[in-house]
Amino acid sequence: MKKNKLAIIGRGNVATHLANAFRCDMTMNITIVNPRTLEDMVWDADICLISVSDNAIPLVASALKDFKGIIAHTSGSTPMSVLNICNKNYGVFYPLQTFSKDKHIDYSRIPIFIEAANDFTKNALISLAGIMTQKVYEADSDKRSVLHLASVFACNYVNHLWSIADSILKDEGLNIEILYPLIEETVDKIHRCTPANAQTGPAIRSDSTTISHHINMLRSQPQLQNLYKILALDINPKCIPNN
Amino acid sequence: MKKNKLAIIGRGNVATHLANAFRCDMTMNITIVNPRTLEDMVWDADICLISVSDNAIPLVASALKDFKGIIAHTSGSTPMSVLNICNKNYGVFYPLQTFSKDKHIDYSRIPIFIEAANDFTKNALISLAGIMTQKVYEADSDKRSVLHLASVFACNYVNHLWSIADSILKDEGLNIEILYPLIEETVDKIHRCTPANAQTGPAIRSDSTTISHHINMLRSQPQLQNLYKILALDINPKCIPNN
Repeated sequence: MKKNKLAIIGRGNVATHLANAFRCDMTMNITIVNPRTLEDMVWDADICLISVSDNAIPLVASALKDFKGIIAHTSGSTPMSVLNICNKNYGVFYPLQTFSKDKHIDYSRIPIFIEAANDFTKNALISLAGIMTQKVYEADSDKRSVLHLASVFACNYVNHLWSIADSILKDEGLNIEILYPLIEETVDKIHRCTPANAQTGPAIRSDSTTISHHINMLRSQPQLQNLYKILALDINPKCIPNN
Repeated sequence: MKKNKLAIIGRGNVATHLANAFRCDMTMNITIVNPRTLEDMVWDADICLISVSDNAIPLVASALKDFKGIIAHTSGSTPMSVLNICNKNYGVFYPLQTFSKDKHIDYSRIPIFIEAANDFTKNALISLAGIMTQKVYEADSDKRSVLHLASVFACNYVNHLWSIADSILKDEGLNIEILYPLIEETVDKIHRCTPANAQTGPAIRSDSTTISHHINMLRSQPQLQNLYKILALDINPKCIPNN
């Protein structure tokens, strides 16, 4: 049986996890390629995924001008057009997930968004994604940018707020663990109603006594105090008196 | 068998859920009291919990001056001292959770923080909390304020970021559901390492191309654009060039 050859260029978390996700498939031959040297590049691969930092995609693409197979990057915010210097079969293979090294993920639940310069490439990338997950969608570069922007708020910035909570608790000898039941319930709620309808807390109920108390508690950390106010006012523009 | 009488003053989510949590206990007789009229007040109750908005606690407390039992409020940010106008057996019974109407919660996982003016009250409130959960802790008013402030960031503000993500996606005919696997993975990560160590995304990796692209996408929503920048810079002060 002839195996399909897949080259994954990158050394980061996305490249590593994509390789893991496909490794169980017996019809595929996976090679991870060092993006700095390209020394392991499989020049006769059927598909090549570029999983490098957004800034580095154009550089890698230009080094792959002579590659004859299908070529796709995996970035949320990079337009497909950066690959138009390659052969005509280019596209995007965007897994909407946060990947960490040494952290197992259920790949079958990850949505993958496909964009392609032609139908041949589109069908090949959809088939590839289908090996990993049933959640395969098409999204052009604008839609993918919107998905990525939303995921920055929903994942990266949310994680940062948990980091802030953790640091606030550390001053009292506590840490984020004490908030796990609260955090799990917060997540559970948005599976039952929209986040807008799930909103609770001092800002939404215009509890100015508590808000003033919190703002005062943060007086020695002006940057955090400012963030507290901005988020409170974004939830409810009238929640801080005389603002 | 003489039943212990518990009066819960309030008509909101906390009052409703506390009543539900204790209702299964056969040794207790629970009464929910309307805070505006106090017409159902059980004046010979053993314990009375005041679960009203923070601003209203002093008013309710002053109406309960003649109550002889143990009296406690359930607020995160209100000092215990607001109850010192009541009889000497006063304290705080603070469940660290977000409560919504008609939403089942596993009460046994909720941490409850107790503060009391004397040991008799403390022991009674700890026993009461022990009916509901094994996670019973002591916390003075300062510690409780810190817990509440942290929970505003970890729950209320996190939910607001999900609300923002939802609204960004709506413009593309999508909604927050597409992000569920991402959100669940984001939560899962902080159970394995600190949120600070779990941080991913364009800000932490100084991906200025993506950040500039996102800032440009938000140009018609200056308030949201400002929030994006502030959170990016709070994660990594050097992530926005020429800022």
